[in-house]
Amino acid sequence: MKIKSVEMCLLFDFYGDILTDKQKEIFDLYYNEDMSLAEISENLGITRQGVRDSIIRSEAILTTTEEKLGLVARYGRIQSKMQKIDEALRNIKFINDSNYRNNDIKKLVSSALEITGNLSEL
Amino acid sequence: MKIKSVEMCLLFDFYGDILTDKQKEIFDLYYNEDMSLAEISENLGITRQGVRDSIIRSEAILTTTEEKLGLVARYGRIQSKMQKIDEALRNIKFINDSNYRNNDIKKLVSSALEITGNLSEL
Repeated sequence: MKIKSVEMCLLFDFYGDILTDKQKEIFDLYYNEDMSLAEISENLGITRQGVRDSIIRSEAILTTTEEKLGLVARYGRIQSKMQKIDEALRNIKFINDSNYRNNDIKKLVSSALEITGNLSEL
Repeated sequence: MKIKSVEMCLLFDFYGDILTDKQKEIFDLYYNEDMSLAEISENLGITRQGVRDSIIRSEAILTTTEEKLGLVARYGRIQSKMQKIDEALRNIKFINDSNYRNNDIKKLVSSALEITGNLSEL
Protein backbone atom coordinates (compact mmCIF):
# COMPACT_ATOMS: atom_id res chain seq x y z
CA MET A 1 0.00 0.00 0.00
CA LYS A 2 1.21 3.48 -0.82
CA ILE A 3 1.41 6.14 1.84
CA LYS A 4 -1.74 8.32 1.74
CA SER A 5 -3.46 5.45 -0.03
CA VAL A 6 -6.65 5.25 2.02
CA GLU A 7 -7.16 9.00 1.92
CA MET A 8 -6.44 9.18 -1.80
CA CYS A 9 -8.80 6.30 -2.61
CA LEU A 10 -11.55 8.08 -0.71
CA LEU A 11 -10.90 11.35 -2.53
CA PHE A 12 -10.81 9.42 -5.81
CA ASP A 13 -14.13 7.76 -4.99
CA PHE A 14 -15.75 11.17 -4.51
CA TYR A 15 -13.99 13.38 -7.02
CA GLY A 16 -12.31 10.98 -9.45
CA ASP A 17 -14.65 11.84 -12.29
CA ILE A 18 -13.37 15.39 -12.52
CA LEU A 19 -10.03 13.96 -13.69
CA THR A 20 -9.40 13.22 -17.38
CA ASP A 21 -9.76 9.61 -18.50
CA LYS A 22 -5.98 9.23 -18.75
CA GLN A 23 -5.41 10.70 -15.29
CA LYS A 24 -8.08 8.38 -13.89
CA GLU A 25 -6.53 5.34 -15.52
CA ILE A 26 -3.06 6.07 -14.14
CA PHE A 27 -4.37 6.98 -10.70
CA ASP A 28 -6.45 3.82 -10.54
CA LEU A 29 -3.54 1.58 -11.53
CA TYR A 30 -1.28 3.24 -8.97
CA TYR A 31 -3.62 3.45 -5.99
CA ASN A 32 -6.31 0.84 -6.51
CA GLU A 33 -4.32 -1.77 -8.44
CA ASP A 34 -1.16 -1.00 -6.46
CA MET A 35 1.09 -1.02 -9.54
CA SER A 36 4.50 0.64 -9.44
CA LEU A 37 5.45 3.68 -11.52
CA ALA A 38 7.67 1.45 -13.67
CA GLU A 39 4.89 -1.08 -14.25
CA ILE A 40 2.39 1.60 -15.24
CA SER A 41 4.99 3.22 -17.48
CA GLU A 42 5.59 -0.09 -19.27
CA ASN A 43 1.88 -0.94 -19.52
CA LEU A 44 0.75 2.38 -20.93
CA GLY A 45 3.84 3.28 -22.94
CA ILE A 46 4.44 6.53 -21.05
CA THR A 47 7.72 7.55 -19.41
CA ARG A 48 8.08 6.83 -15.71
CA GLN A 49 8.37 10.59 -15.15
CA GLY A 50 5.15 11.14 -17.09
CA VAL A 51 3.34 8.65 -14.87
CA ARG A 52 4.74 10.31 -11.76
CA ASP A 53 3.74 13.79 -12.93
CA SER A 54 0.22 12.63 -13.71
CA ILE A 55 -0.23 11.09 -10.24
CA ILE A 56 1.10 14.20 -8.49
CA ARG A 57 -1.18 16.39 -10.60
CA SER A 58 -4.21 14.19 -9.86
CA GLU A 59 -3.42 14.15 -6.14
CA ALA A 60 -3.26 17.94 -6.18
CA ILE A 61 -6.58 18.26 -8.03
CA LEU A 62 -8.34 15.86 -5.64
CA THR A 63 -6.84 17.45 -2.53
CA THR A 64 -7.62 20.99 -3.65
CA THR A 65 -11.17 20.01 -4.53
CA GLU A 66 -11.72 18.58 -1.06
CA GLU A 67 -10.20 21.70 0.51
CA LYS A 68 -12.72 23.77 -1.41
CA LEU A 69 -15.82 21.58 -1.13
CA GLY A 70 -15.26 19.44 1.98
CA LEU A 71 -17.73 16.81 0.80
CA VAL A 72 -15.62 13.86 1.94
CA ALA A 73 -15.49 15.40 5.40
CA ARG A 74 -19.25 16.00 5.32
CA TYR A 75 -19.78 12.38 4.35
CA GLY A 76 -17.55 11.30 7.22
CA ARG A 77 -19.70 13.28 9.65
CA ILE A 78 -22.83 11.63 8.28
CA GLN A 79 -21.29 8.19 8.70
CA SER A 80 -20.38 8.93 12.28
CA LYS A 81 -23.96 10.08 12.98
CA MET A 82 -25.28 6.92 11.39
CA GLN A 83 -23.02 4.89 13.67
CA LYS A 84 -24.51 6.61 16.72
CA ILE A 85 -28.02 5.81 15.50
CA ASP A 86 -26.95 2.24 14.82
CA GLU A 87 -25.70 1.89 18.39
CA ALA A 88 -28.93 3.32 19.83
CA LEU A 89 -30.97 0.91 17.70
CA ARG A 90 -28.93 -2.08 18.89
CA ASN A 91 -29.52 -1.07 22.48
CA ILE A 92 -33.25 -0.67 21.87
CA LYS A 93 -33.26 -4.10 20.26
CA PHE A 94 -31.49 -5.59 23.27
CA ILE A 95 -33.93 -4.04 25.75
CA ASN A 96 -36.93 -5.13 23.69
CA ASP A 97 -35.60 -8.67 23.21
CA SER A 98 -34.83 -9.01 26.93
CA ASN A 99 -38.03 -7.52 28.31
CA TYR A 100 -40.97 -7.13 25.96
CA ARG A 101 -40.41 -9.13 22.78
CA ASN A 102 -42.69 -6.64 21.01
CA ASN A 103 -42.86 -7.76 17.40
CA ASP A 104 -43.59 -4.31 15.99
CA ILE A 105 -40.59 -2.79 17.74
CA LYS A 106 -38.53 -5.72 16.50
CA LYS A 107 -39.57 -5.09 12.88
CA LEU A 108 -39.06 -1.32 13.13
CA VAL A 109 -35.60 -1.73 14.62
CA SER A 110 -34.68 -4.28 11.96
CA SER A 111 -35.77 -2.03 9.12
CA ALA A 112 -33.73 0.86 10.51
CA LEU A 113 -30.70 -1.33 11.23
CA GLU A 114 -30.75 -2.48 7.63
CA ILE A 115 -29.96 1.10 6.64
CA THR A 116 -27.44 1.93 9.34
CA GLY A 117 -25.76 -1.45 8.83
CA ASN A 118 -24.90 -0.59 5.24
CA LEU A 119 -22.84 2.54 5.78
CA SER A 120 -20.65 1.83 2.79
CA GLU A 121 -23.71 2.06 0.54
CA LEU A 122 -24.54 5.60 1.61
CA MET B 1 -37.91 33.13 -7.51
CA LYS B 2 -36.08 32.21 -10.70
CA ILE B 3 -36.89 29.04 -12.56
CA LYS B 4 -34.43 26.28 -11.55
CA SER B 5 -33.76 28.23 -8.38
CA VAL B 6 -34.05 25.45 -5.80
CA GLU B 7 -31.94 23.08 -7.84
CA MET B 8 -29.32 25.74 -8.52
CA CYS B 9 -29.11 26.78 -4.86
CA LEU B 10 -28.53 23.15 -3.89
CA LEU B 11 -25.81 22.74 -6.52
CA PHE B 12 -24.29 26.03 -5.35
CA ASP B 13 -24.34 24.84 -1.74
CA PHE B 14 -22.33 21.75 -2.70
CA TYR B 15 -20.08 22.95 -5.48
CA GLY B 16 -20.12 26.75 -5.23
CA ASP B 17 -16.55 26.93 -4.01
CA ILE B 18 -15.15 25.65 -7.28
CA LEU B 19 -16.38 28.89 -8.90
CA THR B 20 -14.21 32.01 -8.92
CA ASP B 21 -14.97 34.68 -6.31
CA LYS B 22 -16.55 36.91 -8.96
CA GLN B 23 -18.71 34.07 -10.33
CA LYS B 24 -19.79 33.23 -6.78
CA GLU B 25 -20.70 36.81 -6.01
CA ILE B 26 -22.85 37.20 -9.13
CA PHE B 27 -24.47 33.79 -8.70
CA ASP B 28 -25.28 34.52 -5.07
CA LEU B 29 -26.85 37.89 -5.86
CA TYR B 30 -28.94 36.38 -8.64
CA TYR B 31 -30.13 33.16 -6.98
CA ASN B 32 -29.89 33.73 -3.23
CA GLU B 33 -30.55 37.47 -3.08
CA ASP B 34 -33.00 37.29 -5.98
CA MET B 35 -31.59 40.39 -7.70
CA SER B 36 -32.30 41.03 -11.39
CA LEU B 37 -29.60 41.06 -14.08
CA ALA B 38 -30.00 44.84 -14.35
CA GLU B 39 -29.63 45.35 -10.59
CA ILE B 40 -26.50 43.19 -10.42
CA SER B 41 -25.09 44.99 -13.46
CA GLU B 42 -25.61 48.35 -11.77
CA ASN B 43 -24.28 47.20 -8.40
CA LEU B 44 -21.11 45.62 -9.69
CA GLY B 45 -20.43 47.92 -12.64
CA ILE B 46 -20.50 45.08 -15.18
CA THR B 47 -22.64 45.03 -18.34
CA ARG B 48 -25.96 43.23 -18.12
CA GLN B 49 -24.67 40.82 -20.79
CA GLY B 50 -21.57 40.18 -18.69
CA VAL B 51 -23.72 39.30 -15.69
CA ARG B 52 -25.87 37.01 -17.81
CA ASP B 53 -22.83 35.25 -19.30
CA SER B 54 -21.34 34.70 -15.87
CA ILE B 55 -24.54 33.14 -14.53
CA ILE B 56 -24.90 30.85 -17.53
CA ARG B 57 -21.26 29.81 -17.22
CA SER B 58 -21.64 29.13 -13.48
CA GLU B 59 -24.82 27.12 -14.03
CA ALA B 60 -22.99 25.03 -16.62
CA ILE B 61 -20.03 24.40 -14.28
CA LEU B 62 -22.28 23.39 -11.40
CA THR B 63 -24.51 21.19 -13.55
CA THR B 64 -21.58 19.46 -15.26
CA THR B 65 -19.90 18.84 -11.92
CA GLU B 66 -23.03 17.16 -10.57
CA GLU B 67 -23.33 15.09 -13.75
CA LYS B 68 -19.77 13.88 -13.17
CA LEU B 69 -19.77 13.46 -9.39
CA GLY B 70 -23.43 12.95 -8.43
CA LEU B 71 -22.79 14.04 -4.84
CA VAL B 72 -26.00 16.06 -4.53
CA ALA B 73 -27.93 12.99 -5.63
CA ARG B 74 -26.00 10.84 -3.15
CA TYR B 75 -26.82 13.31 -0.41
CA GLY B 76 -30.51 13.16 -1.40
CA ARG B 77 -30.45 9.38 -1.05
CA ILE B 78 -28.89 9.69 2.41
CA GLN B 79 -31.57 12.17 3.46
CA SER B 80 -34.31 9.85 2.29
CA LYS B 81 -32.76 6.97 4.27
CA MET B 82 -32.56 9.19 7.32
CA GLN B 83 -36.25 10.00 6.91
CA LYS B 84 -37.08 6.28 6.93
CA ILE B 85 -35.08 5.81 10.13
CA ASP B 86 -36.77 8.86 11.63
CA GLU B 87 -40.18 7.35 10.91
CA ALA B 88 -39.21 4.01 12.45
CA LEU B 89 -37.92 5.79 15.56
CA ARG B 90 -41.16 7.75 15.94
CA ASN B 91 -43.15 4.55 15.74
CA ILE B 92 -40.92 2.87 18.33
CA LYS B 93 -41.37 5.90 20.55
CA PHE B 94 -45.13 5.68 20.18
CA ILE B 95 -45.22 1.98 21.04
CA ASN B 96 -42.95 2.47 24.03
CA ASP B 97 -44.88 5.48 25.31
CA SER B 98 -48.19 3.66 24.94
CA ASN B 99 -47.18 0.32 26.41
CA TYR B 100 -43.95 0.16 28.38
CA ARG B 101 -42.75 3.66 29.25
CA ASN B 102 -39.23 2.23 29.38
CA ASN B 103 -36.95 5.13 30.22
CA ASP B 104 -33.87 3.67 28.55
CA ILE B 105 -35.72 3.16 25.28
CA LYS B 106 -37.08 6.68 25.61
CA LYS B 107 -33.58 8.14 25.98
CA LEU B 108 -32.12 6.04 23.16
CA VAL B 109 -34.92 7.01 20.79
CA SER B 110 -34.54 10.68 21.73
CA SER B 111 -30.80 10.68 21.10
CA ALA B 112 -31.30 9.11 17.68
CA LEU B 113 -34.20 11.39 16.79
CA GLU B 114 -32.02 14.38 17.56
CA ILE B 115 -29.82 13.33 14.65
CA THR B 116 -32.54 12.35 12.19
CA GLY B 117 -34.53 15.46 13.10
CA ASN B 118 -31.74 17.73 11.88
CA LEU B 119 -31.48 16.56 8.30
CA SER B 120 -30.49 19.98 7.06
CA GLU B 121 -27.37 19.82 9.23
CA LEU B 122 -26.09 16.67 7.58
